[in-house]
Amino acid sequence: MKPVIEFFFDFSSPYSYIASEWVEAVAGRHGRAVHWHAILLGATFQAAELKRPVSYPIKREYSLRDFARSARFAGLPFVQPGKFPIPTQNAARIFWWLHDGIAPERAVAWAHAGLRAYFTRSVDLSDTAALDALAQESGLDAAAARAAYTDPQWKERLKRENDAAIAAGVFGAPFFIVDGEPFWGNDRRGQIEQWLAGQADFEHTVM
Amino acid sequence: MKPVIEFFFDFSSPYSYIASEWVEAVAGRHGRAVHWHAILLGATFQAAELKRPVSYPIKREYSLRDFARSARFAGLPFVQPGKFPIPTQNAARIFWWLHDGIAPERAVAWAHAGLRAYFTRSVDLSDTAALDALAQESGLDAAAARAAYTDPQWKERLKRENDAAIAAGVFGAPFFIVDGEPFWGNDRRGQIEQWLAGQADFEHTVM
Repeated sequence: MKPVIEFFFDFSSPYSYIASEWVEAVAGRHGRAVHWHAILLGATFQAAELKRPVSYPIKREYSLRDFARSARFAGLPFVQPGKFPIPTQNAARIFWWLHDGIAPERAVAWAHAGLRAYFTRSVDLSDTAALDALAQESGLDAAAARAAYTDPQWKERLKRENDAAIAAGVFGAPFFIVDGEPFWGNDRRGQIEQWLAGQADFEHTVM
Repeated sequence: MKPVIEFFFDFSSPYSYIASEWVEAVAGRHGRAVHWHAILLGATFQAAELKRPVSYPIKREYSLRDFARSARFAGLPFVQPGKFPIPTQNAARIFWWLHDGIAPERAVAWAHAGLRAYFTRSVDLSDTAALDALAQESGLDAAAARAAYTDPQWKERLKRENDAAIAAGVFGAPFFIVDGEPFWGNDRRGQIEQWLAGQADFEHTVM
């Protein structure tokens, strides 16, 4: 069994949304499974003393343009949410509740549901009514989902996950760790594919 | 005549080095010329209130790894200079002296000479003796080059270029402006190629 691909994402990250749509296909072509990790980008930014690109005035306009362009480039629907970024801890806690308490594949389905809802329909995942409606629409027990994201157990679980990500060197999203090699950003897709296709060759070419 | 590609680079930017090796070929395949602009990344960072990625401890290790990996990915030789980053105003002033005073293609040849010397042989472009030796080795009149980089005329020329770049929205390097569309980073090569191949189709896909 080949090592899994560790995939870290935040529900409020447009580049995470784009990557979430190709990571399974790319991994699958090379016989790899994907471990999905919902994290809070804010926690990793704080640890690394970084800020979101949209928080820099000069970069903001470019970033908004690049989000949409990168989605088009990937052939994906994308609508920039007016409210952006948003706090995503509740969506992430539902992810970990499903992951640990129900089944990891249900958590992945929820990740897709949340990312697609926010980045194609502007569903505000930080609004509890909207979140509960999305949970229901996604086939979850909405009352159980709400109980989960207010439960200290899943708050703590998400915090541990953030801490573990930071300890592993994650400082942004999407972030991938493949065979111990870190890749940051949706735009590292080409390098990840090349790594998976011929890890040893890639590593020793030219150097 | 199709619009030129505006290409902004800094002599101390590894991603600029990588992009400098493909930009002419990519442009040429689509009947475009390239206007090269030597700028100081420090000036654009200051204007945008940004810092170099290597100035963040958590990002530094990743960045150094990614520089080398991105060069391998592009099939280019690369040796991380021990002294990095370096001030590059003298190399940039030589560029503008050649560009305005001799011929733009001589300036491009100098850009290649400087980027390759720094990123494959660790030639310290901030050291005047090393810079003078590189000028001579590159077929320039070393005394004239030295006179140029100490001449207020070329100091002022570089400053004007930095200001113009900032006014055009440039906040990093490499930076490309194609048909008014801004692209930041060596990793936007794919999007630039797609833009050049079918600007209108690309722009309207999905959206």
